[in-house]
Amino acid sequence: MTALSIGKGITLDSAEEMETTLRTIGATRYHSLHPFHRLLHGGKLNKGQVQAWALNRYYYQSTIPLKDAMVMTRFRDRMTRVEWRHRIEDHDGDLGSEGGIERWLKLTEGLGLDTAYVESTEGILPATRFAVEAYVHFCRDRTPLEAIASSLTELFAPNLHEERISGMLKHYDFVNPDIMSYFSRRLTQAPRDAGFALDYVKQHARTPAEREAVCNALIFKTNVLWVQLDALYYAYVDGQIPPGAFVPKAS
Amino acid sequence: MTALSIGKGITLDSAEEMETTLRTIGATRYHSLHPFHRLLHGGKLNKGQVQAWALNRYYYQSTIPLKDAMVMTRFRDRMTRVEWRHRIEDHDGDLGSEGGIERWLKLTEGLGLDTAYVESTEGILPATRFAVEAYVHFCRDRTPLEAIASSLTELFAPNLHEERISGMLKHYDFVNPDIMSYFSRRLTQAPRDAGFALDYVKQHARTPAEREAVCNALIFKTNVLWVQLDALYYAYVDGQIPPGAFVPKAS
Repeated sequence: MTALSIGKGITLDSAEEMETTLRTIGATRYHSLHPFHRLLHGGKLNKGQVQAWALNRYYYQSTIPLKDAMVMTRFRDRMTRVEWRHRIEDHDGDLGSEGGIERWLKLTEGLGLDTAYVESTEGILPATRFAVEAYVHFCRDRTPLEAIASSLTELFAPNLHEERISGMLKHYDFVNPDIMSYFSRRLTQAPRDAGFALDYVKQHARTPAEREAVCNALIFKTNVLWVQLDALYYAYVDGQIPPGAFVPKAS
Repeated sequence: MTALSIGKGITLDSAEEMETTLRTIGATRYHSLHPFHRLLHGGKLNKGQVQAWALNRYYYQSTIPLKDAMVMTRFRDRMTRVEWRHRIEDHDGDLGSEGGIERWLKLTEGLGLDTAYVESTEGILPATRFAVEAYVHFCRDRTPLEAIASSLTELFAPNLHEERISGMLKHYDFVNPDIMSYFSRRLTQAPRDAGFALDYVKQHARTPAEREAVCNALIFKTNVLWVQLDALYYAYVDGQIPPGAFVPKAS
């Protein structure tokens, strides 16, 4: 594998070979492996660093419905849109019922961040914004098959979320189950979504070239996630906060 | 007014002046005024011509959810997305509940067209495709305010739909209330949607230049609708059917 693609020497003559490769990508490139997550889940960060993570990740979370609406613009098939629409509902909620974005704001508020500041996204790292916007543009500009394939990181999310819930509750006295409700809810939502997307790409990627595009879309997406943690590590662990970005209060 | 804009000499110093101009645009440029509609509603078309209208209009109807998903990609404000999402639900329906697209297919099927042929969109006029795609691109490329403003033709739809339901039921023995359910349903859906959009543009267009952009977005949209009827008239009333387009069976 290269930074951008599966590279040479991997055969993708069947849907099963493709799934094996997708799972290899997850096992080697999903951001569960990133050093920042080891610090986060192992109780090694201070509250300001956890705030920085939640603040930046809000931009990703709040952009997901825009990304999913973009995916919907790619499908003339009504039933694919109907299936995809529930992702937007999961994140946006409805009049009088909360969605994933509001649950994320419970987390940032529970961590002591001002909600208006979080929603303004003015304190996030430029690298966060670029990575998240690259994801939306990918879903606009690539094939519909690749747009769906780029969601496949959800295959690997439940393990990460379980590790996060237990690790953060164990190690941080400023974390409680209520503010972690985003992750507990995703434990049931993500497998359904990932199952649909995996079935879709296995059914619709019919040539080795299409299967390769699916695998490379997943690599692209793992990069979108990884880059965000690199930027957090550099800014808030190494302490090189760029101009204008969130500065934790001394505690 | 020019073909594309309100032109010179119209003052737009308030939301009320803008609304007056919007209603003038509707009263002078909405496709209810098009000669093809006078023929359609007055019982002056044969079944093949009505088929051609329903077949072409299917492309418009089935693209509306893609257009609305595109509008959703423009709004970081969650509540605007939640409001807009119900438009997609109205057209796409849900698992086990029909939406506007299925109701339109009841119409085309009731008129004797093969549903697979209709869904393939292979027999539509090129002008239909270009006009409809221009609408999606407009919502992608213009400001979010203009994207919403371009939906304002719905302000004028209920009168047209009432005229259509009564006219077609009265004049055509191949039309019955069941296959006209798309229009009867829109009588309640369109006013809610139009009301939201009108309130939105009145609140968010804060300068004369923004109000002018809103008015011109509505003119653009009336052109999208008008062009489709021009093409139908030329092909199926004047009889100049372009290569590859639907040819009614002699009856």
